[in-house]
Amino acid sequence: MKTTRLEAFSDGVLAIIITIMVLEMKVPHATDLAGLKPVLPVFLSYVLSFIYLGIYWNNHHHLFQATEQVSGGILWANLHLLFWLSLFPFTTGWMGENGFASMPTAVYGFVLVMAAIAYLILERAIIAKEGRDSVLAQAVGRDRKGKLTATFYLSAIPLAFVSPSIACGLYVLAALLWLIPDPRIERKLEDRKE
Amino acid sequence: MKTTRLEAFSDGVLAIIITIMVLEMKVPHATDLAGLKPVLPVFLSYVLSFIYLGIYWNNHHHLFQATEQVSGGILWANLHLLFWLSLFPFTTGWMGENGFASMPTAVYGFVLVMAAIAYLILERAIIAKEGRDSVLAQAVGRDRKGKLTATFYLSAIPLAFVSPSIACGLYVLAALLWLIPDPRIERKLEDRKE
Amino acid sequence: MKTTRLEAFSDGVLAIIITIMVLEMKVPHATDLAGLKPVLPVFLSYVLSFIYLGIYWNNHHHLFQATEQVSGGILWANLHLLFWLSLFPFTTGWMGENGFASMPTAVYGFVLVMAAIAYLILERAIIAKEGRDSVLAQAVGRDRKGKLTATFYLSAIPLAFVSPSIACGLYVLAALLWLIPDPRIERKLEDRKE
Amino acid sequence: MKTTRLEAFSDGVLAIIITIMVLEMKVPHATDLAGLKPVLPVFLSYVLSFIYLGIYWNNHHHLFQATEQVSGGILWANLHLLFWLSLFPFTTGWMGENGFASMPTAVYGFVLVMAAIAYLILERAIIAKEGRDSVLAQAVGRDRKGKLTATFYLSAIPLAFVSPSIACGLYVLAALLWLIPDPRIERKLEDRKE
Repeated sequence: MKTTRLEAFSDGVLAIIITIMVLEMKVPHATDLAGLKPVLPVFLSYVLSFIYLGIYWNNHHHLFQATEQVSGGILWANLHLLFWLSLFPFTTGWMGENGFASMPTAVYGFVLVMAAIAYLILERAIIAKEGRDSVLAQAVGRDRKGKLTATFYLSAIPLAFVSPSIACGLYVLAALLWLIPDPRIERKLEDRKE
Repeated sequence: MKTTRLEAFSDGVLAIIITIMVLEMKVPHATDLAGLKPVLPVFLSYVLSFIYLGIYWNNHHHLFQATEQVSGGILWANLHLLFWLSLFPFTTGWMGENGFASMPTAVYGFVLVMAAIAYLILERAIIAKEGRDSVLAQAVGRDRKGKLTATFYLSAIPLAFVSPSIACGLYVLAALLWLIPDPRIERKLEDRKE
Repeated sequence: MKTTRLEAFSDGVLAIIITIMVLEMKVPHATDLAGLKPVLPVFLSYVLSFIYLGIYWNNHHHLFQATEQVSGGILWANLHLLFWLSLFPFTTGWMGENGFASMPTAVYGFVLVMAAIAYLILERAIIAKEGRDSVLAQAVGRDRKGKLTATFYLSAIPLAFVSPSIACGLYVLAALLWLIPDPRIERKLEDRKE
Repeated sequence: MKTTRLEAFSDGVLAIIITIMVLEMKVPHATDLAGLKPVLPVFLSYVLSFIYLGIYWNNHHHLFQATEQVSGGILWANLHLLFWLSLFPFTTGWMGENGFASMPTAVYGFVLVMAAIAYLILERAIIAKEGRDSVLAQAVGRDRKGKLTATFYLSAIPLAFVSPSIACGLYVLAALLWLIPDPRIERKLEDRKE
């Protein structure tokens, strides 16, 4: 299977997940600003998940940029990742509609952890096929960033029962870590071009 | 019509079906773990259908890998397959929301049978055009796997009224049969490359 | 603008419209066969609309097969067609959920008429650009089939108030007319290849 | 990252946003023409938003026609634009379901302003990369049209509390300004071809 079809399918699924999340923002019956008040936490959780899905879409592309052929293992590792990402609308809605209560905030973190693990598995599957000397293997290295943020999500799960704000703070912090471009990867990619 | 557009359209429909199924998992009002309890059977049926759609997407791609041109017959055979697959969110939701009751579990199997038959029809339509000596015809042969799993679904329909667990067991077993890669097809594809 | 992007966007919209229609089939609470009874008319109207959208997707492709460049007029004529097609889930759901009552059946026909007109406008816009001697212009001719079926839908609107069955019969008949391949167009396309 | 994948993803998101808006048009229970009455304002707001999304899709394509490579900044500027566009189904539904009440109409304008600003940022990000002498930079110039219509939306927000009709009139006027093709850009594109 060529990479393009797998990318196109993944793009489709990600695009739909992003847009379906918006359906959790139920149109209020009230027509004043107070009517928007219960929508606010749903909106904030939507913003957070939108950014996460944007990050995954971005990283997903980087992952397959150096990949030529897709094996059965890569294909299912990719579907496994999409599975956990497809649960984002559910956990986002549950967390948002209940004003960031402890259990929904912890479950949100659980799905983040599972998606991060699924991403690491996919990364390993591609490197296993491309070889230890491939551009991807060198650029990613031991993927300390991926493992670090996974630790953030993991810590956030018990912390959500102490204070959901701390857990959410960790989610925001991890997202910021991904948003700031990684100079090492950029450099590797630059090098490759030359 | 070129194969690429048919593939892109099918990918789009499959991606949407997968993601729409998630909407059947209604966000609970409770904020404790007990609130997730009624969601669990819906979640389990979602996992099963997600795997089935992943299998169909994977097989669909294999089917069209060797196809160059699409006739009117192939086009409608493909839409016929997509039609039955588009009923997955409905049957998945019905089975999951009612905790795998007999009738919904049987109807779930009925749609699986119809999708399997639609797939076999599509396979025959492509082979009829590509010729009995084509790679696909040789790789698929008489498609014993396709017919075997179709028998599983068919048996599961009456068995669902004896015990839904047996029917679900058959659905899981058939999915596993598809997940394990078929050495014969892989070999044929390898041969072709050489 | 290249034709490919317009085709990809239209494919996406059509794929989503088809799959969103399924959401009108609400999962019943009952777990026996009687629970499916109220779903049956929704299911039948879904089948009809699925076939219509399949026909439009098929014809849409034929239309753009001979087109190289897209003008602003063609682009908006295409969006105009997609607009009317996007109303299919609404009219399909209204007709199906009310057991093919007169008014919803008439409105279903109205949207069919508008989509047919939008299609004819798009056809004219492309021919205006491609020229009267283009393959499309010759293959389509005066598009008697398109105008004939548009008359069917138009007649069905008042007839729906006499008997919705007659109106539905006309919708099915028009769909069949489109499903049966048109030998003249096929011949033209064959000729072109040679 | 190549432009094509970013375009394909954006097309997917836009196609889904357009089609999801239709879900806000709830199928009425009544089967007479009066049953459609409460749907009418939702329908009108749907038409308006459909046209706006069509304009954005069209302009988005023009923007990337001259772009070869996508930087991280362009990628996130594009996601930022998609974010605001993804709120259209919510604001469209809120405005339509409440018969164009003041607050929802103002919020609709607010999202229009934010989308316009996001579009201008994306435009600047691309020009910054392509250079001041690029075709896009010359064609767009200081993008007076973009800034003019942004002023329209901005004025509509307070005016919605005086009279929602004036605000809606401004939205329609701005849409018309975009629908009428811009002779200067067309000319620039023509020149480039030669």
